Amino acid sequence: MVTFSIQHRQDPGEARVGVLETPHGVIETPTFMPVGSLGVVKGIDPEELHRCGFGLMLSNAYHLYLRPGHALIAGQGGLHKFSGWSGAILTDSGGFQMVSLSGLCQVKEDGVEFASHLDGSRHHLTPELCIETQLALGSDIMMVLDECPPYPCSPEQARDAVHRTTRWAQRCRMASQGVSNGLFGIVQGGVDKDLRCRSARDLVDIGFDGYALGGLSLGEAKPMMFEMIETTVAELPKDRPRYLMGVGMPEDLVEGVCRGVDMFDCVLPSRHGRTGWLFTSTGRVLIKQAQYARDESPIDPHCKCTVCQRFSRAYLRHLFVSNEMLGCRLNTLHNLWYYGTLMAELRAAIQANQLQAYCSAFYAKRQRASVTRSAEGRASSDDLSQKHATVVSA
Amino acid sequence: MVTFSIQHRQDPGEARVGVLETPHGVIETPTFMPVGSLGVVKGIDPEELHRCGFGLMLSNAYHLYLRPGHALIAGQGGLHKFSGWSGAILTDSGGFQMVSLSGLCQVKEDGVEFASHLDGSRHHLTPELCIETQLALGSDIMMVLDECPPYPCSPEQARDAVHRTTRWAQRCRMASQGVSNGLFGIVQGGVDKDLRCRSARDLVDIGFDGYALGGLSLGEAKPMMFEMIETTVAELPKDRPRYLMGVGMPEDLVEGVCRGVDMFDCVLPSRHGRTGWLFTSTGRVLIKQAQYARDESPIDPHCKCTVCQRFSRAYLRHLFVSNEMLGCRLNTLHNLWYYGTLMAELRAAIQANQLQAYCSAFYAKRQRASVTRSAEGRASSDDLSQKHATVVSA
Repeated sequence: MVTFSIQHRQDPGEARVGVLETPHGVIETPTFMPVGSLGVVKGIDPEELHRCGFGLMLSNAYHLYLRPGHALIAGQGGLHKFSGWSGAILTDSGGFQMVSLSGLCQVKEDGVEFASHLDGSRHHLTPELCIETQLALGSDIMMVLDECPPYPCSPEQARDAVHRTTRWAQRCRMASQGVSNGLFGIVQGGVDKDLRCRSARDLVDIGFDGYALGGLSLGEAKPMMFEMIETTVAELPKDRPRYLMGVGMPEDLVEGVCRGVDMFDCVLPSRHGRTGWLFTSTGRVLIKQAQYARDESPIDPHCKCTVCQRFSRAYLRHLFVSNEMLGCRLNTLHNLWYYGTLMAELRAAIQANQLQAYCSAFYAKRQRASVTRSAEGRASSDDLSQKHATVVSA
Repeated sequence: MVTFSIQHRQDPGEARVGVLETPHGVIETPTFMPVGSLGVVKGIDPEELHRCGFGLMLSNAYHLYLRPGHALIAGQGGLHKFSGWSGAILTDSGGFQMVSLSGLCQVKEDGVEFASHLDGSRHHLTPELCIETQLALGSDIMMVLDECPPYPCSPEQARDAVHRTTRWAQRCRMASQGVSNGLFGIVQGGVDKDLRCRSARDLVDIGFDGYALGGLSLGEAKPMMFEMIETTVAELPKDRPRYLMGVGMPEDLVEGVCRGVDMFDCVLPSRHGRTGWLFTSTGRVLIKQAQYARDESPIDPHCKCTVCQRFSRAYLRHLFVSNEMLGCRLNTLHNLWYYGTLMAELRAAIQANQLQAYCSAFYAKRQRASVTRSAEGRASSDDLSQKHATVVSA
């Protein structure tokens, strides 16, 4: 059983603080889910996820179906026991990964035919098999199989994908009758407001425990993404969690929360960690830069994470330049802590009816740092804070 | 200041339990030093080294001289502060690495000319620069610059290397006058007993805080290595620590301890961890093998490490097969714990005058498992325990 209850609404606005109750723990929303496609966030121990403040991990049914196989995991007592993660698990169905990772992918009415990105073996994933896989994994929250067209796509492609996503969602709903696992629908519709509304209404008619916004952050402009969020959220029931899939940068989380999104997932904190892109309250630190070679300060002087308490930028740069595994790990740990802390701060701001003040301060810190960097001749053009400041004030 | 005192001697035999006092902690011997050439054991947090029972880490002056540079580390407050490792550090001089890693290496009387394995830049490392580097790093125990000829080598090459090692040791001793850091000499001599004796006596005449046995485990047969250990140890003062460099497998540590060795270092627990070779009380587990795909048991049911308490062989195999970084980490953590525990057990056995009984049980467990594996048709020929059982009973 997955239940959602709203604890407090920011007035005016859509932002809210809620509680998502699952068989593996209670999660306060808005929340961010770190991505552990294979049951593990790359390089990170499940205990460390808890310490970063996360109660819900995202895994991927497509990846685990292919390797080691959902039946094997079921035989090991399910994904929680197998992976050692005692928190809750949401599994993405993998519709997006089938298209993006596998070769020779063909979407048909019955399901998706694809070749494994691992060994080229042929598979046929139907909505029913998708649910069977997620049940075998023991997901707390399952996602329907959806069709996620690329961006940009033709109006016909977007429309067909919405209709097929609805039909598949209906079949997933049927296939999961009688089980207590949560099931979320996925709104598609590209960047077409009417299609987004149609998709949302169709899914609400079927009825799900929560609703995801899929097919965003695929290359469309940020204002377009925010418009789609607003349009979709307006069609969704207020008493169900809203999950913005695959998003995003810290600024995107802030903007999403302001627009009523309750859940996010993204590979950025872990992937950027591995490439040495570190998130801080004043913008990013690219740890490989020569300017950090002798920098004795921590990544972020205001950060309370285990990395910032113990290691200097100079040492982290040494690890990065030496291609040392511990560097990937420490960077990822810091970034996860940053994301966990950001969400906790957003929740506290909503509870205190201070979200607008929080957002202003959030952008002001980035803006000041950007201006300073610019004055010092550093890479200000890469800084995203100015662009986002425009968005939030629009 | 580094001091060594013997707490207990096994009688009869050479094995002893001692205490090595350094400015960064007291280390009980016999001890094993995990290898953190760059100031870090690959993928492992310094806090985890402490938890595995290690108080002394090995780093490498050659590697750190090249990158990030000893002057940079000195500017950061030394290697302890830079790396976040609060325990003691022994730095190898890197004579071995210069020959094995760098191109165009030329050993001359003044020092070693070599090309960096990183960027091909030319360097000239003298005994004096070698000490300067290790002083800059802030090593608790420095090693002299030695010449380590390959195995096999001609009698002339072995003899010349011994004489040059002695002359360089004298220069290192001179260069470190007035400093409180410990300095160890390195006995060379290949597999020639007379040369080993000569080298040991020459170094003892100069006088060091401890004596290392270099140039072993380079491909010579195990009985030959043990003979060289016995020959060398007989020439060394009983009140100084003896350090067997770059060794080795668990059986080698047991045999070394029985022969009076106090300190070991080796990349095996970390390197084998990354390749999925796991040490257990009954022999190795190669985690990639298909037989572990559904194996719900821990790596070693008798192991108390954080990995064996939480993860199954099936999950570790999944991580390994998926090339997942956490797998390298967990495997390495388990192997380090195994080595740390083995040394603690050896110390306890000596204290209790039970070393022979401990060794018998150590080999018997491996032997039984090997016989069982053999009866089951598994790879018994790879099992090393039988060979070593022969050595210890000889």
